[in-house]
Amino acid sequence: MQQSTSIKIGRFKKGDAEFIGYLIGDVVTIIGETYLERLSLEDLKVLPPCVPSKIIGVGLNYRDHAAELKMPIPDEPLIFLKPPTAVIGPEDYILLPPESSEVHYEGELALVVGKELYRPKSYREAEEAILGYTCFNDVTARDLQRKDGQWTRSKSFNTFAPIGPFIVRDLDPTNLSIQTRLNGNVVQSSSTRELIFKPVELLYRISQIMTLLPGDVIATGTPFGVGPLKAGDVVEVEIESIGLLRNYVKAIE
Amino acid sequence: MQQSTSIKIGRFKKGDAEFIGYLIGDVVTIIGETYLERLSLEDLKVLPPCVPSKIIGVGLNYRDHAAELKMPIPDEPLIFLKPPTAVIGPEDYILLPPESSEVHYEGELALVVGKELYRPKSYREAEEAILGYTCFNDVTARDLQRKDGQWTRSKSFNTFAPIGPFIVRDLDPTNLSIQTRLNGNVVQSSSTRELIFKPVELLYRISQIMTLLPGDVIATGTPFGVGPLKAGDVVEVEIESIGLLRNYVKAIE
Repeated sequence: MQQSTSIKIGRFKKGDAEFIGYLIGDVVTIIGETYLERLSLEDLKVLPPCVPSKIIGVGLNYRDHAAELKMPIPDEPLIFLKPPTAVIGPEDYILLPPESSEVHYEGELALVVGKELYRPKSYREAEEAILGYTCFNDVTARDLQRKDGQWTRSKSFNTFAPIGPFIVRDLDPTNLSIQTRLNGNVVQSSSTRELIFKPVELLYRISQIMTLLPGDVIATGTPFGVGPLKAGDVVEVEIESIGLLRNYVKAIE
Repeated sequence: MQQSTSIKIGRFKKGDAEFIGYLIGDVVTIIGETYLERLSLEDLKVLPPCVPSKIIGVGLNYRDHAAELKMPIPDEPLIFLKPPTAVIGPEDYILLPPESSEVHYEGELALVVGKELYRPKSYREAEEAILGYTCFNDVTARDLQRKDGQWTRSKSFNTFAPIGPFIVRDLDPTNLSIQTRLNGNVVQSSSTRELIFKPVELLYRISQIMTLLPGDVIATGTPFGVGPLKAGDVVEVEIESIGLLRNYVKAIE
């Protein structure tokens, strides 16, 4: 899949130090220092690229996924929240809780907010608050989702919000290939062209409800092909020009 | 309604300075200073008593309210999330958004978390993580709740999470009168005795799902008698031994 050579923003850890940097090729440059320090990506742990105060998910935003779940296509974005405590980064473990026997992957494009935004007057104003885009896995306990009716519990377990690896700026998010692979096999394959509500429209509409803050995440919905994860699996979400989010799966010990 | 004379914890503002203090009678003592400063409550603005990273609401947790909404009583707590940006304090305005024509009050007892908690082994361990209890109004756009099916949007508008005035510690939360008044008229009147899942049980169960952090709030559900708010209304939630949370209502300008 084609990957961009543009600047990517990430959060990194080396020893006990955490920092924000931008990545060109395999070189990470630390942002916010009075001097530039350049480090090699391979010497760093990649953290989740933002620290959201809120993660807003959007249900049924690809026509094919709504059909797959036998749910009607909404005439407005259908939103839910995932707690910040669910966030993990690339290469981290998704933990399967004993409360569920049917935990599903959902590969998604995520929009990351860069500026505080509340009730903008135009799409243009909303657009200016976007920091960039990254990959997201809206991990969901399907059995609990069905049981509760409300989606919150099924989407709120710790580790159920893998995000990353990097935030890519200045990208047209409306025509990107998106693919989820399970143990190397393609299980979801679509394009953000198929989104019912486009990212900027989601941002505009959601910020009519609540103030969005820097680092907040809008997960824009998943395409057709969701399915179960089991201990030992490797799940990858890859989006054209953005990158690849890889996570491993194991049971809570 | 009987009010306790025990120590209450709050957050306060004087000029531009914000601080945490405890209240005895009308005297506020600042916590965390190397000297004690005592201030009169009337010279201070009372802020929301905590700064939650998460607000977890519980649906249908009074038998009479589940019946009122014609919904079945859940066999497990039915949870939802409200975003931290919805929080307002006592005497603040609830803003009616143009997107709804049916915004309801829901008076509730709120549990405030004092220590990080994840998958405790016992109710006792969960109980030790409780900071205390306060009053909460789970403001809900009933028309949008019905339309969406999912409850998130209807409960997430800015100002839809009034909380306060103070956090009361060392309180048995299982036998307290709870009352909501609209323009002085009693519209909800019940007792926390009627809760299906008790506060400690809610804390125990919710922390099996997600890590709870200091300041996080569990809103324990509302009794029978929910109803609409209109511009100009004054809404009060009063809980025995805890206090009175008063808010005003106006339309978003």
